[in-house]
Amino acid sequence: MKAFRDPVHNIILFDKDSEKILLDLIDTREFQRLRHIKQLGLSSFTYPGAEHSRFVHSLGVTHLMKRFIEKISSLKGNIEKRFLEELNDNKILALTSALLHDIGHGPFSHALEKTTKIEHEKWTVGIILGDTEINRILEDYQKGFAREVADVIQRTHKSKPVVKLLSSQLDTDRIDYLLRDSKMTGAGYGSFDLEWMINTLRIGEVNGDIEVGLDLHKGFSIAEDFVMARYYMYVNVYFHKATRSAELLIDKVFERASQLQKEGKIELPEDLNEILINGINKETVNNYINLTDNTMWHYFYLWAKSEDVILSDLSNRLLARRFFKSVNIIDIFKFFSTVQNYYNANDIPINFYLLRDEATSSSYKDAYIMQSLRTESQESEREASEQIFLFDNKGHAEELSNKSDIIRQIRNKKISIERFFIPEEHKNMVLGG
Amino acid sequence: MKAFRDPVHNIILFDKDSEKILLDLIDTREFQRLRHIKQLGLSSFTYPGAEHSRFVHSLGVTHLMKRFIEKISSLKGNIEKRFLEELNDNKILALTSALLHDIGHGPFSHALEKTTKIEHEKWTVGIILGDTEINRILEDYQKGFAREVADVIQRTHKSKPVVKLLSSQLDTDRIDYLLRDSKMTGAGYGSFDLEWMINTLRIGEVNGDIEVGLDLHKGFSIAEDFVMARYYMYVNVYFHKATRSAELLIDKVFERASQLQKEGKIELPEDLNEILINGINKETVNNYINLTDNTMWHYFYLWAKSEDVILSDLSNRLLARRFFKSVNIIDIFKFFSTVQNYYNANDIPINFYLLRDEATSSSYKDAYIMQSLRTESQESEREASEQIFLFDNKGHAEELSNKSDIIRQIRNKKISIERFFIPEEHKNMVLGG
Amino acid sequence: MKAFRDPVHNIILFDKDSEKILLDLIDTREFQRLRHIKQLGLSSFTYPGAEHSRFVHSLGVTHLMKRFIEKISSLKGNIEKRFLEELNDNKILALTSALLHDIGHGPFSHALEKTTKIEHEKWTVGIILGDTEINRILEDYQKGFAREVADVIQRTHKSKPVVKLLSSQLDTDRIDYLLRDSKMTGAGYGSFDLEWMINTLRIGEVNGDIEVGLDLHKGFSIAEDFVMARYYMYVNVYFHKATRSAELLIDKVFERASQLQKEGKIELPEDLNEILINGINKETVNNYINLTDNTMWHYFYLWAKSEDVILSDLSNRLLARRFFKSVNIIDIFKFFSTVQNYYNANDIPINFYLLRDEATSSSYKDAYIMQSLRTESQESEREASEQIFLFDNKGHAEELSNKSDIIRQIRNKKISIERFFIPEEHKNMVLGG
Amino acid sequence: MKAFRDPVHNIILFDKDSEKILLDLIDTREFQRLRHIKQLGLSSFTYPGAEHSRFVHSLGVTHLMKRFIEKISSLKGNIEKRFLEELNDNKILALTSALLHDIGHGPFSHALEKTTKIEHEKWTVGIILGDTEINRILEDYQKGFAREVADVIQRTHKSKPVVKLLSSQLDTDRIDYLLRDSKMTGAGYGSFDLEWMINTLRIGEVNGDIEVGLDLHKGFSIAEDFVMARYYMYVNVYFHKATRSAELLIDKVFERASQLQKEGKIELPEDLNEILINGINKETVNNYINLTDNTMWHYFYLWAKSEDVILSDLSNRLLARRFFKSVNIIDIFKFFSTVQNYYNANDIPINFYLLRDEATSSSYKDAYIMQSLRTESQESEREASEQIFLFDNKGHAEELSNKSDIIRQIRNKKISIERFFIPEEHKNMVLGG
Repeated sequence: MKAFRDPVHNIILFDKDSEKILLDLIDTREFQRLRHIKQLGLSSFTYPGAEHSRFVHSLGVTHLMKRFIEKISSLKGNIEKRFLEELNDNKILALTSALLHDIGHGPFSHALEKTTKIEHEKWTVGIILGDTEINRILEDYQKGFAREVADVIQRTHKSKPVVKLLSSQLDTDRIDYLLRDSKMTGAGYGSFDLEWMINTLRIGEVNGDIEVGLDLHKGFSIAEDFVMARYYMYVNVYFHKATRSAELLIDKVFERASQLQKEGKIELPEDLNEILINGINKETVNNYINLTDNTMWHYFYLWAKSEDVILSDLSNRLLARRFFKSVNIIDIFKFFSTVQNYYNANDIPINFYLLRDEATSSSYKDAYIMQSLRTESQESEREASEQIFLFDNKGHAEELSNKSDIIRQIRNKKISIERFFIPEEHKNMVLGG
Repeated sequence: MKAFRDPVHNIILFDKDSEKILLDLIDTREFQRLRHIKQLGLSSFTYPGAEHSRFVHSLGVTHLMKRFIEKISSLKGNIEKRFLEELNDNKILALTSALLHDIGHGPFSHALEKTTKIEHEKWTVGIILGDTEINRILEDYQKGFAREVADVIQRTHKSKPVVKLLSSQLDTDRIDYLLRDSKMTGAGYGSFDLEWMINTLRIGEVNGDIEVGLDLHKGFSIAEDFVMARYYMYVNVYFHKATRSAELLIDKVFERASQLQKEGKIELPEDLNEILINGINKETVNNYINLTDNTMWHYFYLWAKSEDVILSDLSNRLLARRFFKSVNIIDIFKFFSTVQNYYNANDIPINFYLLRDEATSSSYKDAYIMQSLRTESQESEREASEQIFLFDNKGHAEELSNKSDIIRQIRNKKISIERFFIPEEHKNMVLGG
Repeated sequence: MKAFRDPVHNIILFDKDSEKILLDLIDTREFQRLRHIKQLGLSSFTYPGAEHSRFVHSLGVTHLMKRFIEKISSLKGNIEKRFLEELNDNKILALTSALLHDIGHGPFSHALEKTTKIEHEKWTVGIILGDTEINRILEDYQKGFAREVADVIQRTHKSKPVVKLLSSQLDTDRIDYLLRDSKMTGAGYGSFDLEWMINTLRIGEVNGDIEVGLDLHKGFSIAEDFVMARYYMYVNVYFHKATRSAELLIDKVFERASQLQKEGKIELPEDLNEILINGINKETVNNYINLTDNTMWHYFYLWAKSEDVILSDLSNRLLARRFFKSVNIIDIFKFFSTVQNYYNANDIPINFYLLRDEATSSSYKDAYIMQSLRTESQESEREASEQIFLFDNKGHAEELSNKSDIIRQIRNKKISIERFFIPEEHKNMVLGG
Repeated sequence: MKAFRDPVHNIILFDKDSEKILLDLIDTREFQRLRHIKQLGLSSFTYPGAEHSRFVHSLGVTHLMKRFIEKISSLKGNIEKRFLEELNDNKILALTSALLHDIGHGPFSHALEKTTKIEHEKWTVGIILGDTEINRILEDYQKGFAREVADVIQRTHKSKPVVKLLSSQLDTDRIDYLLRDSKMTGAGYGSFDLEWMINTLRIGEVNGDIEVGLDLHKGFSIAEDFVMARYYMYVNVYFHKATRSAELLIDKVFERASQLQKEGKIELPEDLNEILINGINKETVNNYINLTDNTMWHYFYLWAKSEDVILSDLSNRLLARRFFKSVNIIDIFKFFSTVQNYYNANDIPINFYLLRDEATSSSYKDAYIMQSLRTESQESEREASEQIFLFDNKGHAEELSNKSDIIRQIRNKKISIERFFIPEEHKNMVLGG
């Protein structure tokens, strides 16, 4: 047994024989790279304890996947039996997919995606299927296994239960990140009783699919508590205005650096440059692997000394944590014209010094919590994967938001996040003006 | 009140008026840089949760300093009164020194110190006294204040209690790091009951000095428990062989890179180069501030592509976590000659591929635990600052290791750590040979 | 300093000088008696860890009262200043009232109240004002102080803030019991971040009264979380059907014993007998003090050997935890007639063997959560004390359920608890019939 | 699955099919009685949170037994295989014995044993083999099973591993009580990392017996930590002087009550009386089952009103927590003669008003910690069951105190606890005299 200690799950064990593939994957350069990608990006600027990486989160999800499968395997019944057979064939697939689900995340995901126009999900697939250590281990394990893992992560694999254990409303991914983010930030909002949740895990059939859910009676409160925990983490942590201000600042640093690079005035990291030129392909996957938080921060330090005043100013703000401040706006037209006049008069480029935060620019999405933010999509359009099922003793399923007034309330809530940020030193000028 | 959330202390509060200087110092670029220096260096390779930075540790020490001062201030008695007066003059000094005590730490402190031949303590003083944002804030607060802060951190300040609250056997620095490292690693060894310790804090006079200690009766077990916690953390975490192997590997990467740079074959980070050329001075302090874990990791990624096979090999091992493995040695002479023969035959440079770990090469030192490692220094030579005092109701002091058989036992224990590490692929060849 | 260790608050300190009155009160026989009254009555039959007494809860409330007062005292502002002056006069009054607020609780409060027709609140006043050790200490402290303490506990004291810190929607009493009950049951539902709540405490003026509340922005989520915690504890712990079945069984044991005693067939505990004869008065207060869980359990053991088959059967069920089981009823009229026929045919007294649970028979009441249970009282009738206020930076108050969709949802929720319990051995007969 | 919530282990599960016998045993009147026997007797007078019963402790030990067996069953190797086969036959036996190991405990065990001259271990066997609900369930499960369970608890069963998992230096009993007592008292001393301990469980052969132990390398620190935890709990909790003073006071209450009963002046509880007359036999087992803390406390309340001044005085001290105070004695002969003179002069019976505490009068015994207290027994005499074994990779065993300087230190330590207690009001008279 190989044991990892973990502040969230205490001990994470992998069997050196039956789970050798997991240990081999962990020891690849591609997976080790996740040590250098912070799970919460810039949240540690707001919650200084939240420095944890995607490496430890990935171990945590794999551990939870194993616990979920073990619990479900111990349930008795006919559907459970069918599920069990399916799992017997797919247990290693589920664990491997859990381990690799975040493998394609890059530094400051959103900002990088905007710059490269390539979503991190594509890199995940690229690394799994490309000419990488990970791909070799997967294919050595079983011909075609890499493709299967990619399918699970992309939610196109035919084994619905495996897909849903990794990504659905009640999946091991978000369970781990809620508990971990809550513990590391020190903000207690995200905590819920994991042991009780696992104890009330059930499966059943909904519209012909096997679905993972909770016991209607014993699991009802924990299901509510879990969705509430997410809600509180969104409101208080993920959308914290200081964090959002930092994220928007990073966007602008990337934007300015790209401009200057196109004008031949500065150089981007070589690996990033290759990606900008060639897009995603077999070769650039290996460039991508070299991009971590470290390289970007190294460049932010370099750019802080740049001759371009905008790039150096924005970079310096980042290094000294002098983020823009949010402003309370009563009359948005008046606000714009005031800012515009003041910025024009003082030669301040408005594109870089007035930041707008809207939920759609955020990388956080959650069907229960944020749906009204995204679109006014009809209830009926939601897929089953965006529901939490509660099963009664006879296996009959109820959807959580049908049973819970509280959750239905959250669902229908309008959260309108539109915030504007400007540099503190201009704030008084503008608002006083 | 400005509130920081923290996984160890939950909420850390600073008063926006009376503690404004602390908030101003936190917002400097020099202090923000500590976000990019991991508290435990390479321990996260062994304990993947241990990613916490010196930034959050420094906040924690400051918080503990305040709690200690508040508790001691509430004690009643004559010595306590004198101490209280001294503290009244020195409270902000104590808090400021706590906040800044690690400000000069660099990335991979030990390796960097070996390369530059400049200890991190000198950089601490350099940053405090140099042409920095921190220095300006300190001097604005009070002329000569920077000097006082530097004196406290260097242990030369005339106010002994302030010095000892920051660095002694029972100081706020090690209390925070034990609790934090224990929690973040997930290895429970370092935990002890902080609340009870604070509750049993006492002060008294020993040889004319005011000393901070614990209540003889109520604090005895917690004093033992605290030293034991340190002992377990040393044995299990700080000296963990995988971590030490990583540290020794980093040493060799730095050593090789320095060689190549001298030969003009590669470039070091510009800011490091400046330091190597000019040593520590007013200007290079600002180069030093740019050096963080990020830059070094960025270079390790670059060096992994180096044409020099040693540098690229060592760097790649670091990135893929392929550390050398420890070997059990029965006959050291036979071992050396076997390795030498094998390495010669295979053209492997022994200087880079046989790593020797001895406690003296470690950055961890602890008078209670590690003394026998350092020298066979006589008991009588230990300074008071290396003792933990227990005070009875009449203020009479007893030294912990006089009262505790267990602690005396740890003190006199010979811990001989001499380990050798070689690449896994050579291990069988050599040991089988 | 006298220190009590506590699983919830860790260390509870009382100053031997300035808080001597509290220590003296704790050392009275009347207060020590609370060690023998379980906080959660019969919940330990469902949650076996929940054995904690009203003694330790009372210490916890006093500790929280001190923390609340200290936090509020540190706030700055005009209203805060007025409040502070009021508190300066009333701090010991607040702490003393917190300590004694449950002093009149008896064993199995509800059942005893039904038997004696005297509410426990009357005994609280009786003990405080009567010929007791507590009364002597209060009057020694200050002439008329006992009356003041009684007024605070009865909510008639003129100092509204003191009253509200002890009993309102956001009071120290329910904060302690939620945290404590949650921890001791091991059911995580009731936990919330106490430290953050205290950090966001604010006071302000509402309709001319000083009200204690939370910061509108920083305290919003914790306010929701706190009400949700209560809601989950009610649903999952306080109203747990096994606990309710036990409580109803105890009611019946008392009812039967009273009948038999009136018929001269058995004896009740002497102290209880005195109370039944004489009601509450100066003398019977001292009988009441002798009644604890111990005496009642001793009698349940005696009654288990009674010649009366009903009393011995019910008592034996209690001792062996053979509670009646709840039945799912579809057609209530059919159910009643079936039971009646079966019971008549088998000579089973329906009054003792069909138990009906309705919320009104419960001792738990909560305006946020249970209001719709009690009456269909109009929103407008709720008093301010049943609201949680959130204050913005200008001191303007908003009521939580106006701001929070979720809380409003809970408020308006119909919780209809009507359950029937019958002995397990009859259940199949009746339901199968 | 039947789930119990627990503050220590969170969820304790029993399978309704394969572990039905455990659930049946829990539902007996004899087992339910353990709800009314406090685990720590009078410790809650010192640590008010420590109100937990032997009921919940017994569940905890059973839970740990299952976890230990599951872990050991997953180990691979030849000895492990043999052990596994033995366990396969004995798993339910081990769990049943764990559940029932404390079934014979009575109220205030030591005092009751002194009065009745019957040790609680005899009642345990009596209940298991007697005419009880428990016996019927055991014999229904398998003829002769009751005898086997009794043998395991008495340590005479032929399956050494089962015996040792329940009672040895590293057994499930003391692991549960350390963790539980530590948590409930709020005194952190007894905590250690249970998960890591279970993770390092090993078995091996020592002198032909299969022994349970820990991994030499991974388990070394946790083994030390575990023994240290016990040591701290003994010193700080179990031997706390206020608790010991309470225990000695109870002894005297029982002693006086017995005297008066023999003189026909008072009545003892009927069930106790039966035992005093008839000793332990088939019938009195059913009397014993009726004796709980409740009955004794009920009688203490009655006796507080006794006409006998000694009995009423001692009982009243108990109810109001006015325990005798310990005295520091310099010259024991002088002390005795002073007390004697003073007591004679004031007509105070010295037998009841001078209490002597010596370790031998305590019910706590621990070979690692307390050995020097009991006798000066030779090292060689200690049985294997009093050792903690550490196994290296080859299965070779080392005894903990051979490997650990710290533990050897504790072992050889002289703990001389001899304390005298007298009423506070006489203390000044005597010591001033």
